Amino acid sequence: MNKQVNFKNINITDGFWKNRQSINETVTVNAVYNQFKSTRFKALECNWDDEKDGNIHYFWDSDVAKWIEGAAYIIEKTGNKELKKICDEAIDNIVKNQCEDGYFNSYFIVRKDEKRFFERDQHELYCAGHLFEAAVAYFNATGKDALLKAMCKYADHIYKVFVEEDSAAFVTCGHPEIELALYRLYNLTKNEKHLKLFKFFVEKRGNNDKDTNAYPEYANEYYDQHHMPLKEQKTAEGHAVRAMYMYCAMADMAELTGDKDYLEACKTIFENVINEKMYITGGIGSTYHGEAFTKSYFLPNDTSYAETCAAISFALFCMRMQKLTVDSRYADIVERIIYNGFLSGVSLDGKAFFYENANEVDPQFYMVDTSMASKKGRRHVPIMERVELFWCSCCPPNVIRFIASIGDLMYNYNENTLFVHQFMSSESDINGTKVIQKTNYPNDGKIKIKLENSSFEKIAVRLPSWCKSFTADKEYELKNGYLYFNSCDEININFEMKVKLIQANLNVQNNAGRVAVTYGPFVYCLEEADNGKLLRSIAISPNNKFKAEYNKDYNAPVLTTTGFKKKQGNELYSEYTCEYEEIPLKFIPYFAFANRGANEMVIWVGIK
Amino acid sequence: MNKQVNFKNINITDGFWKNRQSINETVTVNAVYNQFKSTRFKALECNWDDEKDGNIHYFWDSDVAKWIEGAAYIIEKTGNKELKKICDEAIDNIVKNQCEDGYFNSYFIVRKDEKRFFERDQHELYCAGHLFEAAVAYFNATGKDALLKAMCKYADHIYKVFVEEDSAAFVTCGHPEIELALYRLYNLTKNEKHLKLFKFFVEKRGNNDKDTNAYPEYANEYYDQHHMPLKEQKTAEGHAVRAMYMYCAMADMAELTGDKDYLEACKTIFENVINEKMYITGGIGSTYHGEAFTKSYFLPNDTSYAETCAAISFALFCMRMQKLTVDSRYADIVERIIYNGFLSGVSLDGKAFFYENANEVDPQFYMVDTSMASKKGRRHVPIMERVELFWCSCCPPNVIRFIASIGDLMYNYNENTLFVHQFMSSESDINGTKVIQKTNYPNDGKIKIKLENSSFEKIAVRLPSWCKSFTADKEYELKNGYLYFNSCDEININFEMKVKLIQANLNVQNNAGRVAVTYGPFVYCLEEADNGKLLRSIAISPNNKFKAEYNKDYNAPVLTTTGFKKKQGNELYSEYTCEYEEIPLKFIPYFAFANRGANEMVIWVGIK
Repeated sequence: MNKQVNFKNINITDGFWKNRQSINETVTVNAVYNQFKSTRFKALECNWDDEKDGNIHYFWDSDVAKWIEGAAYIIEKTGNKELKKICDEAIDNIVKNQCEDGYFNSYFIVRKDEKRFFERDQHELYCAGHLFEAAVAYFNATGKDALLKAMCKYADHIYKVFVEEDSAAFVTCGHPEIELALYRLYNLTKNEKHLKLFKFFVEKRGNNDKDTNAYPEYANEYYDQHHMPLKEQKTAEGHAVRAMYMYCAMADMAELTGDKDYLEACKTIFENVINEKMYITGGIGSTYHGEAFTKSYFLPNDTSYAETCAAISFALFCMRMQKLTVDSRYADIVERIIYNGFLSGVSLDGKAFFYENANEVDPQFYMVDTSMASKKGRRHVPIMERVELFWCSCCPPNVIRFIASIGDLMYNYNENTLFVHQFMSSESDINGTKVIQKTNYPNDGKIKIKLENSSFEKIAVRLPSWCKSFTADKEYELKNGYLYFNSCDEININFEMKVKLIQANLNVQNNAGRVAVTYGPFVYCLEEADNGKLLRSIAISPNNKFKAEYNKDYNAPVLTTTGFKKKQGNELYSEYTCEYEEIPLKFIPYFAFANRGANEMVIWVGIK
Repeated sequence: MNKQVNFKNINITDGFWKNRQSINETVTVNAVYNQFKSTRFKALECNWDDEKDGNIHYFWDSDVAKWIEGAAYIIEKTGNKELKKICDEAIDNIVKNQCEDGYFNSYFIVRKDEKRFFERDQHELYCAGHLFEAAVAYFNATGKDALLKAMCKYADHIYKVFVEEDSAAFVTCGHPEIELALYRLYNLTKNEKHLKLFKFFVEKRGNNDKDTNAYPEYANEYYDQHHMPLKEQKTAEGHAVRAMYMYCAMADMAELTGDKDYLEACKTIFENVINEKMYITGGIGSTYHGEAFTKSYFLPNDTSYAETCAAISFALFCMRMQKLTVDSRYADIVERIIYNGFLSGVSLDGKAFFYENANEVDPQFYMVDTSMASKKGRRHVPIMERVELFWCSCCPPNVIRFIASIGDLMYNYNENTLFVHQFMSSESDINGTKVIQKTNYPNDGKIKIKLENSSFEKIAVRLPSWCKSFTADKEYELKNGYLYFNSCDEININFEMKVKLIQANLNVQNNAGRVAVTYGPFVYCLEEADNGKLLRSIAISPNNKFKAEYNKDYNAPVLTTTGFKKKQGNELYSEYTCEYEEIPLKFIPYFAFANRGANEMVIWVGIK
């Protein structure tokens, strides 16, 4: 088993992710705070007045917790004092208002609701989990332990209620999260209770009588993954974010216990997702209805859900798997997610967010139910432009913490071997070895990896799945998707980037006769802003020549080529004609769509 | 203005519609009665007990009324005594239980609901309208006037409540129907009150204060077409069946009054439908949500609604328009409807029905919301196989009355000219002239029209819009889509039938890169039963040769050709390959789909 290199040991020095981290540190973290200040942060004072202030919500604490976690990562790197001040104030409020017995949830405290731990779907343990993660992160960043102590007290309370007394109305929380948080807490505290509680929640899900019929009335037991014991599960089911947080904890369990059943379940579920239930962007959860996984191959483009948080949690799961198993596909999927279906979740300027990420946009059909006032039954499509805040605003702070700690995804190592999963210009201290990456990736595929004072015998560099041709200046052996080099001072690799046209499995019938254009790790799209309306009437040929050119707005290559646009009259139905006009086409990276107002967008383009 | 030839003067002697009428008379009318007997018919006894019998429904009377109307048409042609007996019993119950003041609605009588005429959407006047139509039909068929008298009494009551007292909670009914029914009643009774009431309801819709905010809470004022006065309306809006019944009454109003504003509104709305809001099958109303018209060009195939009743009511509207205006497009649309989007509504054996008519079926995606118990928000797709009864079973009896009276669509005439809109082997008495059609249409395009004792100077024969080449053995002049022949004893025409590939307007983006195959008036489809799974991965070439051959199961031609089926591996995403295998393809008429179990179906096929 390999170890993960924590982002704190990695300095991203320049390039694509340095740019995104700068925006994250200087814009996004503040923008989200300003949106949360008068609601989620104020609610921590526990004197919320619904009549005066509007409705408090039971998952608000998790929004603050993810924000604190993200801020902590930024503080760790930058020492940002303003962020520290905000965190300290919030933590003060949490500590001050924590109940005598250790319980904390601003919603339940304000509501004076006697029904603590009464409903599985009320997100209490989910909020607790995010607060635990925040506590760990803030302690690591600052050495301050106020939140950590408070959360250890809360963990004790949860242990008492759930394990010792069994006095809650349920056994496992409707929204997984506390499991992986407890494992993380344990790894800091080494408190056996945290470990026991972690194992308890993982082992009990789908494996106890109390939870059997405990799910929201609109859902069934698949919704929150308690349809069977976790180690027996073979397919990705239910609410995609809940599912992926749960699978993260299953991977943690495999790491902790070495239990092969958990590892096998994780592997099998991963195969199910990547072979049958994933958008080409790495987006998962294809329906609004339950924000959930659906039947295999149901991947509609215009009504895609593909929540930003689901992309994040999928990456977090793959990050765990790449530690447990040497198989480059985990890091390939991480790459697919971070450059596409995750990054589309935040605007280029870092201020606005998608919760759902459309895989195709046609503004003429945004609201088609012209005679209906009710939303019930209405065709649901994602919004067409990013916004600053959602009623359920889980994604924005998740974006902050994910980008701030993106270094976590880069490396694993063991005594002999350093695994390089992702490519970013950076300087890292890995178990005493200084590892320097120099690259313009993903603007081109040239990567220089330099090791100083190396303690490793081998370096295993992921060969990206999109790459069919590359050069390396040292000898290597290809195994499990990694190029194994005998340890050396410097390796220069060039992964040749070419435009690739991708076809979807024939079962994804909505993509029949269409291809996606990719270049390096990026999936591309056509936007109306560049190519006019009626993008579905454009086709490209398999022989198309593309030109890739760096674009500073996207900090990524833009592709130009020639397309064939169908020409026909205005009749609703007419005899088929073969007329096309050749038009210049500009493809931009998918993640950058919808930064120029609501307009048409397609990923899947007709192929002639 | 032209007159319509009533179906009673037309004997369909053999061929496609004779066959469908036989099934209608011998199977469908009995099958539907057997389904309705213990519910809708029993409810007329007005001693319904919800607790014992299940819930009575406020639109049940309309189901019986349409059944009686259809049975009357059959009785008129066949003298069927069993049907007469059933009708008489039902009518006895209606007459016996009719209120002192003339009111009749089995639901409100049973419920002893004091809130008669209190809610616009409770379908009371809609039910009344269908009862009026049944009364007219049954009187015409049998000379028996019990129902007619009862309904005249009911009409008097409605007149008193709505016109004289203005004591109802609304002015116009949420579901149009009574308007066209009153016009029909007036044409039999010549009672001025019926005429006034008809005009009152037509003129008041969208033109009074009481109705302003009176629509179901989930809808808006477009839903039942009261968003503006009818004569000012320019686009088809809201619930498609309600809309078309309303437009029928507007056409009736134009006929009655000669008011050009009504005629222009009807023409403009017709253009809106056929140019922007109609499936290639003639199906209308593309969303389940409100069973309604949507934005222009929103015509999804898999989630199409295209209710059978909407197709029927659209044909009834066109039937009125072809009387008012010499423009072959009205009869063209009638043809499109009757051979496609209407006829798909009933099974080949006549026993089972579609309410919604899918334009594409993929069983693998029938129920995709695997973790959701609730229907709320679920992706709604039409059922994949016809059933014998629906909770809201408006379509089955509508099918009966429409097929039984399909002769109504065939002819119009004036002093000089006989207009031949539809082609069916038949013998008719038209104002003293015997008109004989001999044809295998639509199995081929040869039509012989013979007139005996003709009083007409000209015969105007519709040139079907699908036909680009034809021969006629007499001289003609083409005007407004009709071939005008100087009156002659016999005309022989041959409309050449060729397979035509049809493209959809580019705004219908879901049909991009796809064509529909047509032959004569039939739209064709591919079914899994003939062509295997994954029909979207099949393409045809514009140069494809097709072979048409009569098929006795469908009583219509079947087309065979060669298709190109994409060959590729099982990966979810893989590099594009150009491999195809040639496979034999069999296209069947769309109306005949889903008669061999639930299976894949596509109308729109890829074009290479």
